[in-house]
Amino acid sequence: MDLDEVTISRAIVQEQSRVLLEYMEMDVAIVGGGPSGLACAALLGERGIKCALIEKKLSIGGGMWGGGMMFPRIVVQEEARRLLDRFGIAYREHAPGYYVASSVEAVSKLTAAACSAGVEFFNLTTVEDVMVKGDGRVSGLVINWTPVEMAGLHVDPFTLACSYTIDATGHDAVVARLVEAKGTDLAVKGEGFMWAGRAETNIIRHTREIYPGLVVTGMAANAVAGENRMGPIFGGMLLSGEFAAGLVAERLGR
Amino acid sequence: MDLDEVTISRAIVQEQSRVLLEYMEMDVAIVGGGPSGLACAALLGERGIKCALIEKKLSIGGGMWGGGMMFPRIVVQEEARRLLDRFGIAYREHAPGYYVASSVEAVSKLTAAACSAGVEFFNLTTVEDVMVKGDGRVSGLVINWTPVEMAGLHVDPFTLACSYTIDATGHDAVVARLVEAKGTDLAVKGEGFMWAGRAETNIIRHTREIYPGLVVTGMAANAVAGENRMGPIFGGMLLSGEFAAGLVAERLGR
Amino acid sequence: MDLDEVTISRAIVQEQSRVLLEYMEMDVAIVGGGPSGLACAALLGERGIKCALIEKKLSIGGGMWGGGMMFPRIVVQEEARRLLDRFGIAYREHAPGYYVASSVEAVSKLTAAACSAGVEFFNLTTVEDVMVKGDGRVSGLVINWTPVEMAGLHVDPFTLACSYTIDATGHDAVVARLVEAKGTDLAVKGEGFMWAGRAETNIIRHTREIYPGLVVTGMAANAVAGENRMGPIFGGMLLSGEFAAGLVAERLGR
Amino acid sequence: MDLDEVTISRAIVQEQSRVLLEYMEMDVAIVGGGPSGLACAALLGERGIKCALIEKKLSIGGGMWGGGMMFPRIVVQEEARRLLDRFGIAYREHAPGYYVASSVEAVSKLTAAACSAGVEFFNLTTVEDVMVKGDGRVSGLVINWTPVEMAGLHVDPFTLACSYTIDATGHDAVVARLVEAKGTDLAVKGEGFMWAGRAETNIIRHTREIYPGLVVTGMAANAVAGENRMGPIFGGMLLSGEFAAGLVAERLGR
Amino acid sequence: MDLDEVTISRAIVQEQSRVLLEYMEMDVAIVGGGPSGLACAALLGERGIKCALIEKKLSIGGGMWGGGMMFPRIVVQEEARRLLDRFGIAYREHAPGYYVASSVEAVSKLTAAACSAGVEFFNLTTVEDVMVKGDGRVSGLVINWTPVEMAGLHVDPFTLACSYTIDATGHDAVVARLVEAKGTDLAVKGEGFMWAGRAETNIIRHTREIYPGLVVTGMAANAVAGENRMGPIFGGMLLSGEFAAGLVAERLGR
Amino acid sequence: MDLDEVTISRAIVQEQSRVLLEYMEMDVAIVGGGPSGLACAALLGERGIKCALIEKKLSIGGGMWGGGMMFPRIVVQEEARRLLDRFGIAYREHAPGYYVASSVEAVSKLTAAACSAGVEFFNLTTVEDVMVKGDGRVSGLVINWTPVEMAGLHVDPFTLACSYTIDATGHDAVVARLVEAKGTDLAVKGEGFMWAGRAETNIIRHTREIYPGLVVTGMAANAVAGENRMGPIFGGMLLSGEFAAGLVAERLGR
Amino acid sequence: MDLDEVTISRAIVQEQSRVLLEYMEMDVAIVGGGPSGLACAALLGERGIKCALIEKKLSIGGGMWGGGMMFPRIVVQEEARRLLDRFGIAYREHAPGYYVASSVEAVSKLTAAACSAGVEFFNLTTVEDVMVKGDGRVSGLVINWTPVEMAGLHVDPFTLACSYTIDATGHDAVVARLVEAKGTDLAVKGEGFMWAGRAETNIIRHTREIYPGLVVTGMAANAVAGENRMGPIFGGMLLSGEFAAGLVAERLGR
Amino acid sequence: MDLDEVTISRAIVQEQSRVLLEYMEMDVAIVGGGPSGLACAALLGERGIKCALIEKKLSIGGGMWGGGMMFPRIVVQEEARRLLDRFGIAYREHAPGYYVASSVEAVSKLTAAACSAGVEFFNLTTVEDVMVKGDGRVSGLVINWTPVEMAGLHVDPFTLACSYTIDATGHDAVVARLVEAKGTDLAVKGEGFMWAGRAETNIIRHTREIYPGLVVTGMAANAVAGENRMGPIFGGMLLSGEFAAGLVAERLGR
Repeated sequence: MDLDEVTISRAIVQEQSRVLLEYMEMDVAIVGGGPSGLACAALLGERGIKCALIEKKLSIGGGMWGGGMMFPRIVVQEEARRLLDRFGIAYREHAPGYYVASSVEAVSKLTAAACSAGVEFFNLTTVEDVMVKGDGRVSGLVINWTPVEMAGLHVDPFTLACSYTIDATGHDAVVARLVEAKGTDLAVKGEGFMWAGRAETNIIRHTREIYPGLVVTGMAANAVAGENRMGPIFGGMLLSGEFAAGLVAERLGR
Repeated sequence: MDLDEVTISRAIVQEQSRVLLEYMEMDVAIVGGGPSGLACAALLGERGIKCALIEKKLSIGGGMWGGGMMFPRIVVQEEARRLLDRFGIAYREHAPGYYVASSVEAVSKLTAAACSAGVEFFNLTTVEDVMVKGDGRVSGLVINWTPVEMAGLHVDPFTLACSYTIDATGHDAVVARLVEAKGTDLAVKGEGFMWAGRAETNIIRHTREIYPGLVVTGMAANAVAGENRMGPIFGGMLLSGEFAAGLVAERLGR
Repeated sequence: MDLDEVTISRAIVQEQSRVLLEYMEMDVAIVGGGPSGLACAALLGERGIKCALIEKKLSIGGGMWGGGMMFPRIVVQEEARRLLDRFGIAYREHAPGYYVASSVEAVSKLTAAACSAGVEFFNLTTVEDVMVKGDGRVSGLVINWTPVEMAGLHVDPFTLACSYTIDATGHDAVVARLVEAKGTDLAVKGEGFMWAGRAETNIIRHTREIYPGLVVTGMAANAVAGENRMGPIFGGMLLSGEFAAGLVAERLGR
Repeated sequence: MDLDEVTISRAIVQEQSRVLLEYMEMDVAIVGGGPSGLACAALLGERGIKCALIEKKLSIGGGMWGGGMMFPRIVVQEEARRLLDRFGIAYREHAPGYYVASSVEAVSKLTAAACSAGVEFFNLTTVEDVMVKGDGRVSGLVINWTPVEMAGLHVDPFTLACSYTIDATGHDAVVARLVEAKGTDLAVKGEGFMWAGRAETNIIRHTREIYPGLVVTGMAANAVAGENRMGPIFGGMLLSGEFAAGLVAERLGR
Repeated sequence: MDLDEVTISRAIVQEQSRVLLEYMEMDVAIVGGGPSGLACAALLGERGIKCALIEKKLSIGGGMWGGGMMFPRIVVQEEARRLLDRFGIAYREHAPGYYVASSVEAVSKLTAAACSAGVEFFNLTTVEDVMVKGDGRVSGLVINWTPVEMAGLHVDPFTLACSYTIDATGHDAVVARLVEAKGTDLAVKGEGFMWAGRAETNIIRHTREIYPGLVVTGMAANAVAGENRMGPIFGGMLLSGEFAAGLVAERLGR
Repeated sequence: MDLDEVTISRAIVQEQSRVLLEYMEMDVAIVGGGPSGLACAALLGERGIKCALIEKKLSIGGGMWGGGMMFPRIVVQEEARRLLDRFGIAYREHAPGYYVASSVEAVSKLTAAACSAGVEFFNLTTVEDVMVKGDGRVSGLVINWTPVEMAGLHVDPFTLACSYTIDATGHDAVVARLVEAKGTDLAVKGEGFMWAGRAETNIIRHTREIYPGLVVTGMAANAVAGENRMGPIFGGMLLSGEFAAGLVAERLGR
Repeated sequence: MDLDEVTISRAIVQEQSRVLLEYMEMDVAIVGGGPSGLACAALLGERGIKCALIEKKLSIGGGMWGGGMMFPRIVVQEEARRLLDRFGIAYREHAPGYYVASSVEAVSKLTAAACSAGVEFFNLTTVEDVMVKGDGRVSGLVINWTPVEMAGLHVDPFTLACSYTIDATGHDAVVARLVEAKGTDLAVKGEGFMWAGRAETNIIRHTREIYPGLVVTGMAANAVAGENRMGPIFGGMLLSGEFAAGLVAERLGR
Repeated sequence: MDLDEVTISRAIVQEQSRVLLEYMEMDVAIVGGGPSGLACAALLGERGIKCALIEKKLSIGGGMWGGGMMFPRIVVQEEARRLLDRFGIAYREHAPGYYVASSVEAVSKLTAAACSAGVEFFNLTTVEDVMVKGDGRVSGLVINWTPVEMAGLHVDPFTLACSYTIDATGHDAVVARLVEAKGTDLAVKGEGFMWAGRAETNIIRHTREIYPGLVVTGMAANAVAGENRMGPIFGGMLLSGEFAAGLVAERLGR
């Protein structure tokens, strides 16, 4: 087959321009492509909610790729095993209630599920601020290209509008900290000592709307609450993402 | 559920030590987790061949995540559409014979397929040399942690043994260049000008055993041959990976 | 007036997507936004030729902003005074035949003239390769975002098609070196010693089509030819840009 | 024409020494070469007021070059359309009251207008402090070469005297922060959330003399006031620059 | 002898996996391989207590290698001479009560003694947090590879459990500062002025359990207490390490 | 005891000045503190030969600290087991003829043995050139502080005189490359592929005087000869160091 | 003449070891080799007071080398003209009471004068702390090699004893800030706005003993006092150095 | 005295502009401010020859400040003792014919002598090229600000005309390498092994006009000739500078 280079470039520009214009207004924007953000996105997408996942890096997956200390395996406890099954992630039982999976498989299966559910992905995209207008709600995200930030260039951002924003950015709790930095009464307490049992138990309780329009999930939820941390066990992450999806869907009346 | 932090850590160490020891001898080692390497790995794994994919970065996916100029879409031509179907990657027709897919979906579905086919992944792992013994064949890889190299530390490597090595490292052709640098008669010519049609057509011809035990696929195949380059069209990559898998399977008698 | 943030973002995306798609095929692509490139672009645009100027940096102007050793003044000799007049750049006579202008005024007036002539600008855009197909001509440019290169990321490029390419990248002669590096018989000799008189006299002679489809202008012309260099005098730059515009227009039959 | 290299160098040194000595005392010093600073400078210059624009970078134009997320287009609303016309910047209507222009054209036309109005430019020049003597007014600027700061060298600065200083340095509000850092009661509140409508409306109100002798304009005005931010819409910037020019001219009795 | 490369790699993986799994629970974890940590470790090991030394760098020895201003000699005073003798470190008397030894010999003999006493070493390992569960005790360490931190990668850590932790990290007092940073009432005062006599005298008094389960020794003890500093004299370091070993052994009932 | 800070500093200066002046002329200078250099130094020192070990880094031990891929264990084969015994390094048998030891113990015991044998150590010291006078022999080393080189400062070196120089700098073969770079007929071929059995067997043969006055040992010997590499097995290193010590002792008539 | 390389090295080591040992106890240590420190040192030395100047950089001269904005000229006012004469520095009268000298000549003549007066120089030497013992006086300096700090290495310092310390480190006021940082009641206020007249007048008043044993001079005196700054005029610097020398000499009874 | 900040700045600009304009044509330009360049400049200046010394760094003195390995002492042999006396540099005899001086004193006295002899200094000035016109002679220097180069900015240079250029840039032989790089038949061989006696003896022979108009002195002379190097002995440097001064003076007929 003869191929035309310009047609290839045009195909990408046209298609992605269409997507970008379409997603400048959406139901839910999920910030951060780690396990809680991916699970949340997949489950929102499955309900037919228009949502996009915004990831700072080139690749999706966040801190899960590296497993524990670069050994690419993760652990999931009994309570979340059903989510491994749901996303088709294989596992082996190490001890009663402790299941070990490949970190690469976990990331790729979660991402694939979100794609199949119709979620759009904007990678290499940094959230540098949020939009809060007269109603006092977080009603949009101010985004820019990550390489522009990495290169230290001064370039203006775009604004995306959304009904709900989900901060799934891990222990940095990026969106929450942006809101905190503007002098609101939101306070990000930072994650506590390592105590996996408590951290995994309480994470659902911390998965909530912390500011009008802003829901927090995964390690970001624990970081905002000053809750303990848990290391390379990911059951709580997945359950928190699932819970955040339910919470937002309910508010949207879906 | 009460959780024990040490049990979590032990689960990962035990499981991954087992995997690492098991994969110190394997049938095929694929170096590089871009589209050709992933397709090749998935198709080898589906045939029951014991293989692992070694990736330098933390994430799998290589240069496909970024689509064209950070617009996360890729193009695939007619000839390779069946592979999109096979891996369950959705697409839209842009012009007759030109199909556009999400780059994020393409990466995650290819990786997921390889995982499901039983392929093992060693990410954050750099190939710093190869093993060539008395028979003159590339019969193993000398690997190290990527962060060790990034930090400029001097730490000794491990050696993995394999019957075949597949260089799927893109235009750097890393393994081929390691062999070239040791004074062999292998010459890596480097990729030519942009000419997508020719590049995509000839890539299958360049997918071959370039040194005893070393097969080259994807953009690395074109780089070794001095062939043209093609930009964000990925049909040739997938077809080359498929061809490499068949070639090696045949030599292994599978 | 009430303003909508999303409308602002959409306006930019729609307008620039339109421009980008339109300029994926054009008559002339000028690479490099220094004095010769700007003069050439303005004069081509004035003839109604469809052309775009591609600049690696965020700002247009190249090496002219800094004048001589950060003293923001430039010198233009008698022969090129008419071009200062043409572009509306003020000057003072320092010695007979030596005119001094503000470097900031020179850059901005040249750029403004090119804009008024209908030239499109793609800044923050790096040319990383060229397209050469069966006819052996430079028939397009392989471009990428400069910040992607600065951040060391692996992202695929786009291809722009053009009938003529003008290398106006200064002493680096970027496009010419890309062609040279692919093993062609084009040789970039590098600029010679400082000898302003000779360099300014010969530059017109070196402004020519050095490879099918590739014309070189300004300091790049002297660098390819091994000609002398000239320092902060810009008459030759402007005259070379003018000459290149004429040469290409003639070949295009305009 | 035969050229003498030393004459070229001498022409620049003599001319710029003259300018520098002449501008060591002036009416108004504008710090920052973005849209508000350029508009302000052009309009002050047109009134015959002796003023110079001091820019940290090599190029003039600030954050406007990059448009929105590197798409080199900007938006201007109805209220400021007359300023686009005044400076000869072409535009297209995207939606009622929203006009899109080329960012490159906007920068170059504004800069060209300032040059034509007799404004002097000192680029690559950093303001590292201000002069405040017995009368408690900001009565001068302490400047240095930007590359000296970039290279981490210890070199003493020069002092320029001026009746008024205009801080047009964008959201960094550099001059205001220098005054704040010396323990005065001036407080820079920092810019608020994204809310373009409010930000564009209020900017004129914030364009004022915030400390004796120091007027603030553009995004710096909003940053000092803790006002919202607005993204790639530039009408307020231009109107604020116009307003600052009028305010200072009035105080100077012009 | 014929050697098998894979057997060599396997030997290391199997042996170290065994060690790592075994030391995920231990009596005492000593953080920091400088003189006080090494002396403490050697003396704990000699009592048959299961302990490991965790060192951030590739090499063991901390700040002692460099002697004073890169002259590789250290000084030990009369009170600690018996410890030089105990560890077999040669010395010369410089003045009454001042003994000079080779810094290289001191490091290597202390490390060798710890090895002979059965201490395990985990080098290139960073302590990034501690485990504190319901009993409020420091009951474990959260560790990661140092190169992962150096390379700025996001990878999850492991957790080691221990009855006592000894902070021997020098003036940074790394573990104490981690505990302080989580909002406890532990305060690290930082080291005082140079006053060797006082610093060396008081260090034993400051070697104590500063938080449940956390003992501090060496310069870290002085830094926590706000005590003076002492320069390249190491008697107090060794005596403090000895004292910490005794203190912990007593609590463990050995 | 009351301590005087100045006495502490003076003790170090006086002692190390004495050592430095004494060792400006010596029998043997060993460059590089890895396993072969340390074994060689210890065995030379035991024979009463005046020698010093010069190490670029702050710590002694070279590439042995990190074991294999940061697992701090090394392997030694049967032929070299007697050297482990001689230096008091504990080991476990992994497979017949393969012994595993702690890398930390190996480094510290080797270094301690060299110290006990009277070897002097100059760490943080870079060899930047060699002295070759009328007799054409390498008769001294040109040294400088490593931090001076790291900081990019221009400071003149010192010269040490020695009868023999031993290059034990590993695969960089630093001293050999310095001699090669001056246009001599010495050629450093660089290490070959991984082939542990052959590399370990041939290393003794490559341990020889490669230039008058310059002996090469350890991985540097293989690198000069173009011999294979071997990974984290250290028997050949120790045997090569032993052989080099014998060879030089013989030439010195000891 | 035949030369011996080792003799050359030995000559330097022996001579400088002697000097270093001799100056470990001295009357006055001056920190910082700018104009005030050099003038102070020269005048102390001329009175026969044993003093050394400690400079962080490789070269002596501090901020005076660069003149104003890299134009290597400095200005000295009438009041300090006699010090130019005293040190043999040539000058030209620019305006009544304003004298211009070469910055290079000023530095070199001041340094030469200090050398001739018997002052010792320790360059590339950083003051990282001070010694304060039971009497509460600053009674010594804790020094290290600057390149050690630049290279980020951990190496212990030496201690020099002195009756008086003079902080001549310019606007950083390094020694004063070290004392402040240890929790004393000394507060460094930082330099004020540019106001040359006031700054030059008041500097003598601020040249005083700010803490027992610690005298401050030059720009450091103004920085401690929160006084204004003055730019490239150096009369106050020289007069302050002269005043500090007199003050300390008086206290020492010379 | 009341001081005016603007007068101070103006004084410097006017004076240095005058100097710069005056020295755009001169007899001799000396590149590099180390010992040979300084001695040469001082001796040329004493003969009334119009010359300037151009130094890349902020400070004058080159590699002499650091003495040997940061011990700030240098050695000068008998043959050059008269030059120490001539420049007023104090010394002590270490061994017969070996004299030790302070490196700080040597630099400052040489620089002071050059200043007194009327030499102009341009520091922070990089020579980036030379001027060679129709007569084939090096007849000028192309200079730029060093910080511009350090900051990686693109700014045009100035040209200085001179009858003779002296390359005194040490082992880099910067000017000679610039000439070599343009394809002339000049070859810079690079310095040889350490052999002080030979290097010091032959340096005078290598001090010669290596290209029309270009004389080389000091270590640059040995580097061009491929001669040996000598370490921290500076007699040959001073004698070479003296010889170069005589040679050039003779050619100029002075």
